[in-house]
Amino acid sequence: MPKVVDPVQRRREIIHALWAVISDRGIEGVTFQAVAKAAGISVGRIQHYFESKEDLVQEGCLAIVAEAESRYFAATTTDNPWEALRALLIQPIPRNRAFRLGVAVWHAYLARAVVDPKINRIVSGAARGALYLATSLLDVDGAVPEDQRATAALRLLSVSDGLSQRVLVGATTAKDAIAAIDAELAQLKEDWIK
Amino acid sequence: MPKVVDPVQRRREIIHALWAVISDRGIEGVTFQAVAKAAGISVGRIQHYFESKEDLVQEGCLAIVAEAESRYFAATTTDNPWEALRALLIQPIPRNRAFRLGVAVWHAYLARAVVDPKINRIVSGAARGALYLATSLLDVDGAVPEDQRATAALRLLSVSDGLSQRVLVGATTAKDAIAAIDAELAQLKEDWIK
Repeated sequence: MPKVVDPVQRRREIIHALWAVISDRGIEGVTFQAVAKAAGISVGRIQHYFESKEDLVQEGCLAIVAEAESRYFAATTTDNPWEALRALLIQPIPRNRAFRLGVAVWHAYLARAVVDPKINRIVSGAARGALYLATSLLDVDGAVPEDQRATAALRLLSVSDGLSQRVLVGATTAKDAIAAIDAELAQLKEDWIK
Repeated sequence: MPKVVDPVQRRREIIHALWAVISDRGIEGVTFQAVAKAAGISVGRIQHYFESKEDLVQEGCLAIVAEAESRYFAATTTDNPWEALRALLIQPIPRNRAFRLGVAVWHAYLARAVVDPKINRIVSGAARGALYLATSLLDVDGAVPEDQRATAALRLLSVSDGLSQRVLVGATTAKDAIAAIDAELAQLKEDWIK
Protein backbone atom coordinates (compact mmCIF):
# COMPACT_ATOMS: atom_id res chain seq x y z
CA MET A 1 0.00 0.00 0.00
CA PRO A 2 1.47 3.39 -0.92
CA LYS A 3 2.23 5.70 1.95
CA VAL A 4 -0.45 8.35 2.38
CA VAL A 5 1.13 11.80 2.45
CA ASP A 6 -0.70 14.80 3.80
CA PRO A 7 -0.35 17.42 1.01
CA VAL A 8 -0.31 20.33 3.49
CA GLN A 9 2.49 18.63 5.43
CA ARG A 10 4.39 17.85 2.20
CA ARG A 11 4.14 21.47 1.01
CA ARG A 12 5.40 22.61 4.41
CA GLU A 13 8.41 20.26 4.18
CA ILE A 14 9.25 21.64 0.74
CA ILE A 15 8.97 25.23 2.01
CA HIS A 16 11.28 24.42 4.94
CA ALA A 17 13.79 22.92 2.52
CA LEU A 18 13.49 26.08 0.39
CA TRP A 19 14.34 28.25 3.41
CA ALA A 20 17.42 26.11 4.11
CA VAL A 21 18.53 26.60 0.49
CA ILE A 22 17.94 30.39 0.69
CA SER A 23 19.85 30.56 3.96
CA ASP A 24 22.73 28.68 2.32
CA ARG A 25 22.73 30.01 -1.26
CA GLY A 26 20.45 33.05 -1.31
CA ILE A 27 17.16 33.46 -3.19
CA GLU A 28 19.01 33.72 -6.49
CA GLY A 29 20.64 30.33 -5.80
CA VAL A 30 17.29 28.51 -5.52
CA THR A 31 16.72 25.66 -7.99
CA PHE A 32 14.20 22.79 -7.87
CA GLN A 33 17.23 20.46 -7.76
CA ALA A 34 18.71 22.13 -4.66
CA VAL A 35 15.36 22.19 -2.84
CA ALA A 36 14.66 18.56 -3.77
CA LYS A 37 18.06 17.55 -2.38
CA ALA A 38 17.48 19.51 0.84
CA ALA A 39 14.01 17.97 1.24
CA GLY A 40 15.22 14.45 0.37
CA ILE A 41 12.59 14.07 -2.35
CA SER A 42 12.51 14.08 -6.16
CA VAL A 43 12.27 17.15 -8.40
CA GLY A 44 9.07 15.67 -9.83
CA ARG A 45 7.50 15.64 -6.38
CA ILE A 46 8.22 19.37 -5.97
CA GLN A 47 6.81 20.08 -9.43
CA HIS A 48 3.65 18.31 -8.30
CA TYR A 49 3.15 21.03 -5.66
CA PHE A 50 4.76 24.09 -7.24
CA GLU A 51 4.42 25.22 -10.85
CA SER A 52 7.73 27.05 -11.11
CA LYS A 53 10.74 28.20 -9.14
CA GLU A 54 9.18 31.69 -8.95
CA ASP A 55 5.98 30.19 -7.57
CA LEU A 56 7.94 28.28 -4.90
CA VAL A 57 9.99 31.36 -3.92
CA GLN A 58 6.81 33.44 -3.57
CA GLU A 59 5.08 30.74 -1.52
CA GLY A 60 8.17 30.65 0.71
CA CYS A 61 7.75 34.36 1.37
CA LEU A 62 4.01 34.06 2.07
CA ALA A 63 4.78 31.17 4.44
CA ILE A 64 7.13 33.36 6.52
CA VAL A 65 4.33 35.90 6.92
CA ALA A 66 1.89 33.11 7.81
CA GLU A 67 4.31 31.65 10.41
CA ALA A 68 4.77 35.09 11.97
CA GLU A 69 0.99 35.43 12.17
CA SER A 70 0.71 31.98 13.78
CA ARG A 71 3.35 32.90 16.35
CA TYR A 72 1.39 36.06 17.08
CA PHE A 73 -1.95 34.27 17.46
CA ALA A 74 -0.40 31.47 19.54
CA ALA A 75 0.97 34.07 21.96
CA THR A 76 -2.32 35.95 22.32
CA THR A 77 -4.65 33.70 24.25
CA THR A 78 -5.95 36.61 26.30
CA ASP A 79 -8.27 39.31 25.02
CA ASN A 80 -6.00 41.95 26.55
CA PRO A 81 -4.91 44.31 23.73
CA TRP A 82 -1.68 45.22 25.55
CA GLU A 83 -0.71 41.55 25.66
CA ALA A 84 -1.57 41.22 21.98
CA LEU A 85 0.48 44.31 21.13
CA ARG A 86 3.42 42.90 23.11
CA ALA A 87 3.14 39.59 21.25
CA LEU A 88 3.11 41.44 17.92
CA LEU A 89 6.23 43.43 18.81
CA ILE A 90 8.20 40.55 20.31
CA GLN A 91 7.33 38.18 17.48
CA PRO A 92 10.19 39.27 15.11
CA ILE A 93 12.95 39.00 17.75
CA PRO A 94 14.93 35.80 17.02
CA ARG A 95 15.36 33.78 20.20
CA ASN A 96 17.34 30.79 18.91
CA ARG A 97 19.49 29.73 15.99
CA ALA A 98 16.68 28.28 13.87
CA PHE A 99 14.64 31.45 14.34
CA ARG A 100 17.72 33.52 13.44
CA LEU A 101 18.07 31.62 10.17
CA GLY A 102 14.39 32.34 9.53
CA VAL A 103 14.91 36.07 10.11
CA ALA A 104 17.94 35.95 7.79
CA VAL A 105 15.74 34.43 5.07
CA TRP A 106 13.25 37.26 5.67
CA HIS A 107 16.06 39.81 5.11
CA ALA A 108 16.98 38.02 1.90
CA TYR A 109 13.36 38.56 0.80
CA LEU A 110 13.52 42.24 1.89
CA ALA A 111 16.59 42.71 -0.30
CA ARG A 112 14.87 40.89 -3.16
CA ALA A 113 11.73 43.04 -2.82
CA VAL A 114 13.52 46.01 -4.36
CA VAL A 115 13.96 44.23 -7.70
CA ASP A 116 11.00 41.79 -7.61
CA PRO A 117 7.50 43.37 -7.68
CA LYS A 118 5.70 40.19 -6.56
CA ILE A 119 7.93 39.74 -3.50
CA ASN A 120 7.56 43.47 -2.88
CA ARG A 121 3.77 43.14 -2.72
CA ILE A 122 4.05 40.37 -0.12
CA VAL A 123 6.57 42.06 2.19
CA SER A 124 5.10 45.57 1.94
CA GLY A 125 1.64 44.06 2.45
CA ALA A 126 2.91 42.36 5.62
CA ALA A 127 4.41 45.65 6.84
CA ARG A 128 1.13 47.49 6.18
CA GLY A 129 -0.90 44.71 7.81
CA ALA A 130 1.23 44.87 10.97
CA LEU A 131 0.77 48.65 11.11
CA TYR A 132 -2.99 48.30 10.74
CA LEU A 133 -3.09 45.66 13.48
CA ALA A 134 -0.84 47.63 15.88
CA THR A 135 -2.90 50.79 15.28
CA SER A 136 -6.16 48.99 16.05
CA LEU A 137 -4.65 47.37 19.18
CA LEU A 138 -3.78 50.88 20.45
CA ASP A 139 -7.50 51.60 20.51
CA VAL A 140 -7.49 50.42 24.15
CA ASP A 141 -10.64 51.90 25.68
CA GLY A 142 -9.75 55.11 23.86
CA ALA A 143 -6.55 55.44 25.91
CA VAL A 144 -4.40 56.60 22.99
CA PRO A 145 -6.09 59.46 21.06
CA GLU A 146 -7.21 58.35 17.61
CA ASP A 147 -5.05 60.86 15.73
CA GLN A 148 -1.91 59.60 17.48
CA ARG A 149 -2.42 55.84 17.19
CA ALA A 150 -0.91 55.36 13.74
CA THR A 151 2.21 57.36 14.69
CA ALA A 152 2.65 55.43 17.95
CA ALA A 153 2.11 52.13 16.13
CA LEU A 154 4.66 53.02 13.45
CA ARG A 155 7.22 53.86 16.13
CA LEU A 156 6.60 50.63 18.06
CA LEU A 157 6.84 48.43 14.97
CA SER A 158 9.97 50.22 13.79
CA VAL A 159 11.62 49.74 17.18
CA SER A 160 10.73 46.05 16.99
CA ASP A 161 12.06 45.61 13.42
CA GLY A 162 15.23 47.59 14.20
CA LEU A 163 15.87 45.49 17.31
CA SER A 164 15.22 42.27 15.36
CA GLN A 165 17.91 43.37 12.90
CA ARG A 166 20.41 44.01 15.73
CA VAL A 167 19.67 40.65 17.38
CA LEU A 168 20.01 38.94 13.99
CA VAL A 169 23.64 40.06 13.67
CA GLY A 170 24.43 39.60 17.37
CA ALA A 171 24.85 43.31 18.19
CA THR A 172 22.09 43.10 20.84
CA THR A 173 20.85 40.09 22.80
CA ALA A 174 17.26 38.85 22.44
CA LYS A 175 16.83 39.47 26.17
CA ASP A 176 17.89 43.13 25.89
CA ALA A 177 15.68 43.59 22.82
CA ILE A 178 12.63 42.21 24.64
CA ALA A 179 13.43 44.40 27.67
CA ALA A 180 13.61 47.43 25.34
CA ILE A 181 10.19 46.55 23.87
CA ASP A 182 8.73 46.16 27.37
CA ALA A 183 10.19 49.55 28.34
CA GLU A 184 8.53 51.12 25.26
CA LEU A 185 5.18 49.63 26.19
CA ALA A 186 5.54 50.71 29.83
CA GLN A 187 6.31 54.25 28.69
CA LEU A 188 3.32 54.26 26.34
CA LYS A 189 1.03 53.10 29.15
CA GLU A 190 2.42 55.74 31.48
CA ASP A 191 1.89 58.44 28.85
CA TRP A 192 -1.63 57.49 27.89
CA ILE A 193 -3.34 55.54 30.65
CA LYS A 194 -4.19 58.07 33.33
CA MET B 1 51.26 56.54 -23.19
CA PRO B 2 49.20 54.21 -20.98
CA LYS B 3 46.23 55.74 -19.21
CA VAL B 4 47.00 56.51 -15.58
CA VAL B 5 44.35 54.99 -13.35
CA ASP B 6 43.83 56.12 -9.77
CA PRO B 7 43.86 52.83 -7.79
CA VAL B 8 41.41 54.19 -5.18
CA GLN B 9 39.01 55.19 -7.95
CA ARG B 10 39.45 51.82 -9.69
CA ARG B 11 38.73 49.91 -6.48
CA ARG B 12 35.63 52.04 -5.97
CA GLU B 13 34.40 51.24 -9.48
CA ILE B 14 34.87 47.52 -8.84
CA ILE B 15 32.98 47.78 -5.54
CA HIS B 16 30.10 49.61 -7.26
CA ALA B 17 29.98 46.86 -9.90
CA LEU B 18 29.96 44.29 -7.08
CA TRP B 19 26.93 45.97 -5.50
CA ALA B 20 25.11 45.91 -8.84
CA VAL B 21 25.82 42.17 -9.11
CA ILE B 22 24.62 41.56 -5.51
CA SER B 23 21.47 43.57 -6.18
CA ASP B 24 20.82 41.48 -9.27
CA ARG B 25 22.04 38.00 -8.28
CA GLY B 26 22.56 38.05 -4.51
CA ILE B 27 25.84 37.67 -2.61
CA GLU B 28 25.94 33.96 -3.43
CA GLY B 29 25.74 34.81 -7.15
CA VAL B 30 28.92 36.91 -7.07
CA THR B 31 31.74 35.78 -9.37
CA PHE B 32 34.80 37.69 -10.64
CA GLN B 33 33.38 37.20 -14.15
CA ALA B 34 30.04 38.81 -13.30
CA VAL B 35 31.70 41.76 -11.51
CA ALA B 36 34.20 42.24 -14.37
CA LYS B 37 31.33 42.33 -16.85
CA ALA B 38 29.37 44.84 -14.75
CA ALA B 39 32.48 47.02 -14.35
CA GLY B 40 33.43 46.72 -18.03
CA ILE B 41 36.97 45.53 -17.19
CA SER B 42 38.85 42.25 -17.29
CA VAL B 43 38.86 39.56 -14.61
CA GLY B 44 42.65 40.01 -14.38
CA ARG B 45 42.18 43.68 -13.48
CA ILE B 46 39.88 42.72 -10.59
CA GLN B 47 42.37 40.08 -9.41
CA HIS B 48 44.97 42.84 -9.34
CA TYR B 49 42.95 44.59 -6.63
CA PHE B 50 41.21 41.74 -4.83
CA GLU B 51 42.76 38.43 -3.83
CA SER B 52 39.61 36.35 -3.88
CA LYS B 53 35.86 36.53 -4.28
CA GLU B 54 35.52 36.39 -0.46
CA ASP B 55 37.94 39.31 -0.14
CA LEU B 56 35.91 41.35 -2.66
CA VAL B 57 32.58 40.53 -0.94
CA GLN B 58 33.99 41.58 2.45
CA GLU B 59 35.43 44.81 1.03
CA GLY B 60 32.02 45.50 -0.49
CA CYS B 61 30.47 45.24 2.98
CA LEU B 62 33.13 47.47 4.58
CA ALA B 63 32.58 50.00 1.79
CA ILE B 64 28.84 50.26 2.62
CA VAL B 65 29.75 51.06 6.22
CA ALA B 66 32.34 53.60 5.02
CA GLU B 67 29.81 55.26 2.67
CA ALA B 68 27.27 55.50 5.49
CA GLU B 69 29.93 57.15 7.66
CA SER B 70 30.78 59.59 4.85
CA ARG B 71 27.12 60.50 4.47
CA TYR B 72 26.94 61.09 8.21
CA PHE B 73 30.05 63.28 8.31
CA ALA B 74 29.00 65.21 5.19
CA ALA B 75 25.70 66.04 6.89
CA THR B 76 27.26 67.20 10.16
CA THR B 77 29.03 70.47 9.43
CA THR B 78 27.82 71.98 12.70
CA ASP B 79 29.12 71.09 16.12
CA ASN B 80 25.55 70.77 17.37
CA PRO B 81 25.13 67.22 18.78
CA TRP B 82 21.37 67.22 18.05
CA GLU B 83 22.08 67.93 14.39
CA ALA B 84 24.68 65.17 14.37
CA LEU B 85 22.25 62.74 16.00
CA ARG B 86 19.60 63.64 13.41
CA ALA B 87 22.10 63.04 10.60
CA LEU B 88 23.00 59.65 12.09
CA LEU B 89 19.34 58.60 12.33
CA ILE B 90 18.27 59.89 8.92
CA GLN B 91 21.30 58.41 7.16
CA PRO B 92 19.83 54.88 6.62
CA ILE B 93 16.51 56.12 5.12
CA PRO B 94 16.68 55.54 1.35
CA ARG B 95 15.61 58.69 -0.51
CA ASN B 96 15.97 57.58 -4.15
CA ARG B 97 16.19 54.43 -6.23
CA ALA B 98 20.00 54.13 -6.19
CA PHE B 99 20.02 54.51 -2.41
CA ARG B 100 17.24 51.90 -2.16
CA LEU B 101 19.35 49.42 -4.12
CA GLY B 102 22.20 50.18 -1.69
CA VAL B 103 19.98 49.46 1.31
CA ALA B 104 18.84 46.23 -0.38
CA VAL B 105 22.49 45.18 -0.72
CA TRP B 106 22.94 45.94 2.98
CA HIS B 107 20.00 43.63 3.79
CA ALA B 108 21.61 40.93 1.66
CA TYR B 109 24.71 41.32 3.87
CA LEU B 110 22.54 41.20 7.03
CA ALA B 111 21.06 37.89 5.84
CA ARG B 112 24.54 36.61 4.98
CA ALA B 113 25.90 37.60 8.42
CA VAL B 114 24.06 34.71 10.06
CA VAL B 115 26.10 32.12 8.15
CA ASP B 116 29.33 34.08 7.49
CA PRO B 117 31.40 35.02 10.59
CA LYS B 118 33.54 37.61 8.74
CA ILE B 119 30.51 39.47 7.38
CA ASN B 120 28.96 39.15 10.83
CA ARG B 121 31.91 40.94 12.42
CA ILE B 122 31.57 43.83 9.97
CA VAL B 123 27.81 44.35 10.29
CA SER B 124 27.63 43.78 14.06
CA GLY B 125 30.65 46.07 14.46
CA ALA B 126 28.82 48.77 12.49
CA ALA B 127 25.72 48.31 14.67
CA ARG B 128 27.80 48.58 17.84
CA GLY B 129 29.70 51.61 16.50
CA ALA B 130 26.45 53.43 15.72
CA LEU B 131 25.18 52.71 19.24
CA TYR B 132 28.39 54.03 20.77
CA LEU B 133 28.20 57.18 18.63
CA ALA B 134 24.50 57.81 19.34
CA THR B 135 25.06 57.27 23.07
CA SER B 136 27.92 59.76 23.16
CA LEU B 137 25.88 62.31 21.13
CA LEU B 138 23.15 62.11 23.79
CA ASP B 139 25.67 63.49 26.26
CA VAL B 140 24.36 66.98 25.38
CA ASP B 141 25.39 69.22 28.26
CA GLY B 142 24.31 66.37 30.53
CA ALA B 143 20.71 66.74 29.33
CA VAL B 144 20.02 62.99 29.18
CA PRO B 145 21.08 61.26 32.42
CA GLU B 146 24.10 59.02 31.87
CA ASP B 147 22.33 55.82 32.91
CA GLN B 148 19.58 56.37 30.34
CA ARG B 149 21.66 57.37 27.32
CA ALA B 150 22.40 53.86 26.01
CA THR B 151 18.72 52.87 26.26
CA ALA B 152 17.57 56.05 24.49
CA ALA B 153 20.25 55.59 21.81
CA LEU B 154 19.22 51.95 21.22
CA ARG B 155 15.60 53.01 20.81
CA LEU B 156 16.46 55.83 18.37
CA LEU B 157 18.70 53.64 16.21
CA SER B 158 16.15 50.83 16.20
CA VAL B 159 13.41 53.24 15.10
CA SER B 160 15.70 54.44 12.32
CA ASP B 161 16.62 50.92 11.13
CA GLY B 162 13.00 49.76 11.33
CA LEU B 163 11.83 52.78 9.32
CA SER B 164 14.60 52.22 6.76
CA GLN B 165 13.29 48.67 6.29
CA ARG B 166 9.72 49.92 5.74
CA VAL B 167 10.87 52.57 3.25
CA LEU B 168 12.97 49.94 1.45
CA VAL B 169 9.88 47.88 0.64
CA GLY B 170 7.65 50.90 0.00
CA ALA B 171 5.39 50.43 3.05
CA THR B 172 6.30 53.93 4.33
CA THR B 173 7.52 56.97 2.39
CA ALA B 174 10.96 58.48 3.05
CA LYS B 175 9.21 61.73 3.96
CA ASP B 176 7.03 60.05 6.61
CA ALA B 177 10.06 58.16 7.97
CA ILE B 178 12.06 61.37 8.35
CA ALA B 179 9.05 63.08 9.97
CA ALA B 180 8.82 60.15 12.43
CA ILE B 181 12.52 60.53 13.30
CA ASP B 182 12.08 64.27 13.81
CA ALA B 183 9.09 63.59 16.08
CA GLU B 184 11.24 61.16 18.12
CA LEU B 185 13.98 63.75 18.53
CA ALA B 186 11.46 66.47 19.44
CA GLN B 187 9.97 64.19 22.09
CA LEU B 188 13.40 63.39 23.47
CA LYS B 189 14.27 67.08 23.71
CA GLU B 190 10.95 67.80 25.41
CA ASP B 191 11.54 65.00 27.91
CA TRP B 192 15.12 65.89 28.78
CA ILE B 193 15.86 69.52 28.04
CA LYS B 194 14.12 71.49 30.73
